[in-house]
Amino acid sequence: MPEITDIATLRKNAQAGRVRALLPVLVESVAEKSSKDGKPFLEIQLVDALDRFVLRVWSDNGQFAVAQELAAGACLQLEGEFAVHPQFGLEAKRWSFAPLTGEAKEEFLAGPADLRVRQEEDYAFIAVEVDGLKDPRLKALGAAFLEKFGPRFRRTAAARFFHHARRGGLVEHVAQMMRYADAVCAANPALHRDLLLSGVLFHDCGKLWENCVEEGGFTMPFDERGELLGHINIGIELVNSLWKTLPLDDWKEVVPDNEDVRLHLLHLVAAHHGELAYGSPVQPKTPEAIALHYIDNLDAKLEMLARGYDGGGTVAERIYDKVKPLNVRLVAPLGLMDV
Amino acid sequence: MPEITDIATLRKNAQAGRVRALLPVLVESVAEKSSKDGKPFLEIQLVDALDRFVLRVWSDNGQFAVAQELAAGACLQLEGEFAVHPQFGLEAKRWSFAPLTGEAKEEFLAGPADLRVRQEEDYAFIAVEVDGLKDPRLKALGAAFLEKFGPRFRRTAAARFFHHARRGGLVEHVAQMMRYADAVCAANPALHRDLLLSGVLFHDCGKLWENCVEEGGFTMPFDERGELLGHINIGIELVNSLWKTLPLDDWKEVVPDNEDVRLHLLHLVAAHHGELAYGSPVQPKTPEAIALHYIDNLDAKLEMLARGYDGGGTVAERIYDKVKPLNVRLVAPLGLMDV
Amino acid sequence: MPEITDIATLRKNAQAGRVRALLPVLVESVAEKSSKDGKPFLEIQLVDALDRFVLRVWSDNGQFAVAQELAAGACLQLEGEFAVHPQFGLEAKRWSFAPLTGEAKEEFLAGPADLRVRQEEDYAFIAVEVDGLKDPRLKALGAAFLEKFGPRFRRTAAARFFHHARRGGLVEHVAQMMRYADAVCAANPALHRDLLLSGVLFHDCGKLWENCVEEGGFTMPFDERGELLGHINIGIELVNSLWKTLPLDDWKEVVPDNEDVRLHLLHLVAAHHGELAYGSPVQPKTPEAIALHYIDNLDAKLEMLARGYDGGGTVAERIYDKVKPLNVRLVAPLGLMDV
Amino acid sequence: MPEITDIATLRKNAQAGRVRALLPVLVESVAEKSSKDGKPFLEIQLVDALDRFVLRVWSDNGQFAVAQELAAGACLQLEGEFAVHPQFGLEAKRWSFAPLTGEAKEEFLAGPADLRVRQEEDYAFIAVEVDGLKDPRLKALGAAFLEKFGPRFRRTAAARFFHHARRGGLVEHVAQMMRYADAVCAANPALHRDLLLSGVLFHDCGKLWENCVEEGGFTMPFDERGELLGHINIGIELVNSLWKTLPLDDWKEVVPDNEDVRLHLLHLVAAHHGELAYGSPVQPKTPEAIALHYIDNLDAKLEMLARGYDGGGTVAERIYDKVKPLNVRLVAPLGLMDV
Amino acid sequence: MPEITDIATLRKNAQAGRVRALLPVLVESVAEKSSKDGKPFLEIQLVDALDRFVLRVWSDNGQFAVAQELAAGACLQLEGEFAVHPQFGLEAKRWSFAPLTGEAKEEFLAGPADLRVRQEEDYAFIAVEVDGLKDPRLKALGAAFLEKFGPRFRRTAAARFFHHARRGGLVEHVAQMMRYADAVCAANPALHRDLLLSGVLFHDCGKLWENCVEEGGFTMPFDERGELLGHINIGIELVNSLWKTLPLDDWKEVVPDNEDVRLHLLHLVAAHHGELAYGSPVQPKTPEAIALHYIDNLDAKLEMLARGYDGGGTVAERIYDKVKPLNVRLVAPLGLMDV
Amino acid sequence: MPEITDIATLRKNAQAGRVRALLPVLVESVAEKSSKDGKPFLEIQLVDALDRFVLRVWSDNGQFAVAQELAAGACLQLEGEFAVHPQFGLEAKRWSFAPLTGEAKEEFLAGPADLRVRQEEDYAFIAVEVDGLKDPRLKALGAAFLEKFGPRFRRTAAARFFHHARRGGLVEHVAQMMRYADAVCAANPALHRDLLLSGVLFHDCGKLWENCVEEGGFTMPFDERGELLGHINIGIELVNSLWKTLPLDDWKEVVPDNEDVRLHLLHLVAAHHGELAYGSPVQPKTPEAIALHYIDNLDAKLEMLARGYDGGGTVAERIYDKVKPLNVRLVAPLGLMDV
Repeated sequence: MPEITDIATLRKNAQAGRVRALLPVLVESVAEKSSKDGKPFLEIQLVDALDRFVLRVWSDNGQFAVAQELAAGACLQLEGEFAVHPQFGLEAKRWSFAPLTGEAKEEFLAGPADLRVRQEEDYAFIAVEVDGLKDPRLKALGAAFLEKFGPRFRRTAAARFFHHARRGGLVEHVAQMMRYADAVCAANPALHRDLLLSGVLFHDCGKLWENCVEEGGFTMPFDERGELLGHINIGIELVNSLWKTLPLDDWKEVVPDNEDVRLHLLHLVAAHHGELAYGSPVQPKTPEAIALHYIDNLDAKLEMLARGYDGGGTVAERIYDKVKPLNVRLVAPLGLMDV
Repeated sequence: MPEITDIATLRKNAQAGRVRALLPVLVESVAEKSSKDGKPFLEIQLVDALDRFVLRVWSDNGQFAVAQELAAGACLQLEGEFAVHPQFGLEAKRWSFAPLTGEAKEEFLAGPADLRVRQEEDYAFIAVEVDGLKDPRLKALGAAFLEKFGPRFRRTAAARFFHHARRGGLVEHVAQMMRYADAVCAANPALHRDLLLSGVLFHDCGKLWENCVEEGGFTMPFDERGELLGHINIGIELVNSLWKTLPLDDWKEVVPDNEDVRLHLLHLVAAHHGELAYGSPVQPKTPEAIALHYIDNLDAKLEMLARGYDGGGTVAERIYDKVKPLNVRLVAPLGLMDV
Repeated sequence: MPEITDIATLRKNAQAGRVRALLPVLVESVAEKSSKDGKPFLEIQLVDALDRFVLRVWSDNGQFAVAQELAAGACLQLEGEFAVHPQFGLEAKRWSFAPLTGEAKEEFLAGPADLRVRQEEDYAFIAVEVDGLKDPRLKALGAAFLEKFGPRFRRTAAARFFHHARRGGLVEHVAQMMRYADAVCAANPALHRDLLLSGVLFHDCGKLWENCVEEGGFTMPFDERGELLGHINIGIELVNSLWKTLPLDDWKEVVPDNEDVRLHLLHLVAAHHGELAYGSPVQPKTPEAIALHYIDNLDAKLEMLARGYDGGGTVAERIYDKVKPLNVRLVAPLGLMDV
Repeated sequence: MPEITDIATLRKNAQAGRVRALLPVLVESVAEKSSKDGKPFLEIQLVDALDRFVLRVWSDNGQFAVAQELAAGACLQLEGEFAVHPQFGLEAKRWSFAPLTGEAKEEFLAGPADLRVRQEEDYAFIAVEVDGLKDPRLKALGAAFLEKFGPRFRRTAAARFFHHARRGGLVEHVAQMMRYADAVCAANPALHRDLLLSGVLFHDCGKLWENCVEEGGFTMPFDERGELLGHINIGIELVNSLWKTLPLDDWKEVVPDNEDVRLHLLHLVAAHHGELAYGSPVQPKTPEAIALHYIDNLDAKLEMLARGYDGGGTVAERIYDKVKPLNVRLVAPLGLMDV
Repeated sequence: MPEITDIATLRKNAQAGRVRALLPVLVESVAEKSSKDGKPFLEIQLVDALDRFVLRVWSDNGQFAVAQELAAGACLQLEGEFAVHPQFGLEAKRWSFAPLTGEAKEEFLAGPADLRVRQEEDYAFIAVEVDGLKDPRLKALGAAFLEKFGPRFRRTAAARFFHHARRGGLVEHVAQMMRYADAVCAANPALHRDLLLSGVLFHDCGKLWENCVEEGGFTMPFDERGELLGHINIGIELVNSLWKTLPLDDWKEVVPDNEDVRLHLLHLVAAHHGELAYGSPVQPKTPEAIALHYIDNLDAKLEMLARGYDGGGTVAERIYDKVKPLNVRLVAPLGLMDV
Repeated sequence: MPEITDIATLRKNAQAGRVRALLPVLVESVAEKSSKDGKPFLEIQLVDALDRFVLRVWSDNGQFAVAQELAAGACLQLEGEFAVHPQFGLEAKRWSFAPLTGEAKEEFLAGPADLRVRQEEDYAFIAVEVDGLKDPRLKALGAAFLEKFGPRFRRTAAARFFHHARRGGLVEHVAQMMRYADAVCAANPALHRDLLLSGVLFHDCGKLWENCVEEGGFTMPFDERGELLGHINIGIELVNSLWKTLPLDDWKEVVPDNEDVRLHLLHLVAAHHGELAYGSPVQPKTPEAIALHYIDNLDAKLEMLARGYDGGGTVAERIYDKVKPLNVRLVAPLGLMDV
């Protein structure tokens, strides 16, 4: 029996030629269509934790009738041969499928073990960082966020397309940014560590509505609130509504003032895109806002490169295809040549 | 005795030569300085409702000692000759001053009668428009705004520099935009009039903090909240906090939903600059957001032109100096040639 | 017998599944091609007043030989089933066709009744507005334009792709802009109404060559003059050549001067794109030029939104696909939720 | 007696220290002002063929009363010492003046002999080039232009500020561009030489109104037509009105058609700025339009560099100040190091 | 027997309908694929000196097995019918192939005779120009370049896509730029001819690595050095390394200094893109750098137009499709209408 | 006797009113000028390690004659009263001066003790970091750089105006960037630490010519090489020439290859501005190039903020003037409110 795999791994392995595999997938949608010359077929969108592809089922395929009955949300085990078409991407050949049930289904929906472990570690790391904040307001705010929105946070992607665009991607992005923020504060003690770490935690929290993945699935629907306001405004609204739940009177005497802390944190959320043209209604005006902006970019861009090296094609040895939204061909890192 | 006038009028009249005048002014600040060749002088910033200029008092002036004692906030009656210097602007010559007191002071602080009347009419018109809204949520929200923030609204400028940059300027801008909005809705009944008028009312309400003029004065200080968040975010926060005071449960059954109304109104506030590069975190995505954006621009640009025609110099007959932030020389309107 | 319909309506109705219909169409072109695997087929471009689609006829279709003989300009009645393919758009299935003749053909070429009525009303409204101008030069110029170029004007589209891109679209655009211009002048009497209305009438008149639809058809060929000069320059040339036909000596004493009127009108045509980068050789420098620019944008953008709401797909409930050249997803208007 | 010189030469020579000179000048304007400490003075704008400076006359100067009576347009002989102030530029010290009359005045108004000779040669060269055109339409059009507008052409500057900004500068610019155009056509015979040379002749002809210097003087007033339409549109209007005076019927049979020639020439005028953002309503779409655009830029930029090398200051040996509108420091040409 | 032709000619001739031809080609790559409905086919990239196209071989074609065995680098003689598909471009029908051998193969690999002759003449012309340089350093440097890198230079394209994108294209580009440079120097003797001609020779020499065509073939692989540094930096490195081989001590007394000559030449290479945003690390700061920039643009743009006229489709009579990277439809040159 | 101070400290202390002080300074230049009303004065540019100001000496000052004799490069002790003029900045009143000699002069030229100590520590830290590199090529290259160019490196500023614009500023910038780079590598072990640290060391090494301060002084002259090539190209040339001095054959077997290491390091230098428009001839294409770009920006921007907080004026409490090239008003950091 062929090995159980996932879409991304299959896509890489099948570059070199046909591969037999067992592939657990979730049905995102089923559409009935017909080719230019009138032949009917089904177009089935299949997704897993990290990737997606399209299965086309022609009317002369014996499984056509069963496939027609598939509902969005169904989980399947696909068995067959897979190849990468230069124009159409990953394709299944001589395949069959069976419902995915019980433990296998649960495990599949949980996502790949290593990703799950990484995201759990990342989330635990975030919780520890929040717990280690010294400013009582920021610590309480972070704790309230994790308590109230933890599960939603863990389902959210960091972006729709370009980096960490997967369930839990935001947790990975925030955790790695916290590591950078810690490091940068160690190298520059003049930075307000509590403020910067809180800025990292909340900078993209509006994406809990803009890029949230459906519970128990891998789909990221569009959201009217996200469209009308954008994640920066939603994030500000979220911080403000959590802030109102804090026992602020207990900290009346703390320096700096409660209101100063709130405004500086909101500034970090508002300014983190760095420039008006990138959607920030204000430019960074404090050291921590500057630092947050560059840390965000550093992690996002390095993830785009990682994605390019990992899954992208090459145009020559050690030269990779352009990766969106970067408009350059990548070159293999020097480190990869060590081995 | 010379006529009582104001700075802007004086500036215009003195273009042609020296003018004697009585000029009521408020002292914004007094600074002691010395010229390049070491002669001490006072630099006194004087303002009135519409304009400002600098009075320089040299140490050999008999009034030097008295002027040294002037405090910010004092109101004076300046009597003297005034001229316009091409490089230094309006200047006072052979002047003397006396404290402005009693009724004269009150009248001065109230601003010029015609401006006061115009702004009162504009404010009354806004109140009538709000009262005429049919949607119960938007009507209640507008009423709450006027009730709670009316006085602050009436002191706010529409901008710091470029248009309606005077106490009460925002009231003038909103009233004229409401007239355009009414007209445009009449010409295009598909537009949601209540939503558009409410968008006009609230689009710049964050400027109540960014560009607010001090009570009983003419000075517009900078505000930390405005710097850190910008007027769009402050406006959204204001709408949200007023919204929470409304009896929303009374309107549970009204169509469209409360939440839809709130989101669409916030979208109008958020998108009214039209493009990310101009500071809107989202672009307009509904018909009313489009309409609001152009109505705002139309009124702002026409006011810039009016300011250019009124006070600007000319480079040739019927050709006016460039006016900031427009980067073009203006040409006299055809209508002005009718007479 | 199925209902007679048109391409745009069919495209909307067929989103939900196959629809039987009678479809009158005009043949724009017929090309003989072959598929990747060598199968010959005909690609027939079919248009009607508002839309277009491609009919592919395979060589094993019994109607292949007859279809091969079709000439550009032929009018047909297509009968069949229609479906929307997500990639290839509207497609005809199991269809047959017959020549469209006599009254049916005439009616078809006249365009849909409601569009025809709307455009006739719009044109009549324009004529009334021109007749109501008080300035004798502008009234005579407008009348000369309608008399000499009325039929061509009525065939012209307002743009090739993005808004009012249909026969007579320019009439609709100009009429609605006149309604806005009237409204804006009422709200701001300082604007020169005659000049602004004339600017609306002539601002896109160069498109009578750039975007003109062929007489008795629905095709908009490219024009060398439009390519070499652009519609702004052609429009200026048109105004100038009409101007020379006016009895200008009769109005020597009228204020403002003839020449002032001509220059200000040409300025409105030249500056209506608002910025050099959008193709205006000069920026707006008068109040009416500013007003024209925003009125033009307001109507064009609202039409783009209407097109997006009407025919575009959705990515979620109440969230619409991006519409060119706007680069945003649209959100359903609040007004549509009232019902 | 000191040498007779001109403003530009004096400015260069006085960099190193005070210089005695006789300086013929024309009075552009006289304004009465007073210094910050109240001392009255006259500010007299003085110009000659190539440059300008300001003479300040203080009230304690014995010539104050006579200078007060000076009228715009008067020609003077200034005698005195001259120095360059790093902030205020060229200044006159211990000077006196006398009216400039008779032959001396005429010679002065004619401009410096070498400039006059150069411009006369350039104009003669242009006339020869026009006479050498083979296409009968283009030759007749060029001849008509020179005949009707020759004197105005010879008074026009190529720009208001940045290059050839002097009386007759356009003649110099057009002549040098014709030399480049000839050379480029020789190197690439596929270019239509007659069309390109005519494009050179007419590309800036709208500047005869935008940048025309007053007859018998050195002042370049602003022009309402230039402001409202811009020189590209005025140029197109000029070509069109000259075109209508040609005996076009005589050339009905000539290939290419009259109308093709007219459109291609207008395209060269319209597209010569190369991009919409630089004010061209259309981009270049023919080989000659491309060539004209680069030849225009080549000559304009080289003139800016020449001006920078000639009159600009240096920030280090062989490194020159930034010259507007180029935003770079210049470096001395290699050729200058040969000697 | 049908005529022997090449891909570009065939593409043009087949626009009007099927054409029989003999077509010598080089195999760039062979990939096995399958259509959407599972039918296997080979996708064979075929190139010649000027163009490329794709041959698809279906599994039911008798030549499938032989074609499967084809290796990259093989030369073939293709015989068959050719047609242009509006979407898929040039296609072969009913074809067969045979190996290309002996003299025919050599002739094919040498490229079309007229191109070969043109490039040989161009290269000879470059050599003569280099030999005619008067500055001993620049002459020696040019000679060293031709001697050491002549063959590589003759294989290099001037760009990957947009102009002169063919083996030897850089030689054509440099030769034509030298003709323009000669002409421009004749029209403006102040330019340093030796420096400008050397700038032309070396400006794109970094492309010998970025855009070099494989020896004995027509393929242009990507190069890691080109990706990491770009052709400007590679060019600077090349000039520097050749410079070090020169007997510089022999020219110690020559004016200008050796080092000045080197720096000015490097400046021309560095600044030839004209603006930072186009990849030049410095803007042009000397007359020759300005001239080089415009001459480079002039030749590149005219070649893009030539390509557009030659191979592009038309959207109307005398109006051509947009050509990348120009974003405009072209209009037929006036000169083409003479005949 | 008043305290010995420096220009920057004096500028801050004198904001509040006149301050007596002893001020050691270096004379950069002496120019003789005269005021508008003809009074002669000397303009003496005075500098110290961190700042600069202008001393004006009027002809009626008893020290005029002695001051006239001052030569550029002289060191003085200035004693007097100092005040800050809002328009003209720091000014000296009732001052006298004496030559600065012996130990006092040496100490002054060495710069302030704390700056000297900080820069020495920073330089020592850099040396340790270089010594700790593991890759033999990069370690040897760094050592060669410090050995050959250490003294010049220690005199170089990181920029001419905007950040670390002082003697030794580049050492401070590189050291702090190395701290960030260390920290970021610790947080992301996939980055190649040796490559990134070497990129930090060399990224601005071209500034050793562009922004080098004269030995034994505080002046930064312009350099022709910097103007013609820019610091990125000079830096690449420097790396290449040091590289050639390394015993590369000893490391033939080391992985990765010598040439790979060289190219990746050059890529970091070439791409560190991040975008073409900011002067990088290539965009970052490897993880280390991305990281270097953001670390460079982070340190540069934080230094601009520090400069703004330290020396800039305020427009309101806790709101600072705009600092070039940032176009925003700064807000006081939250951390400053702790105390």
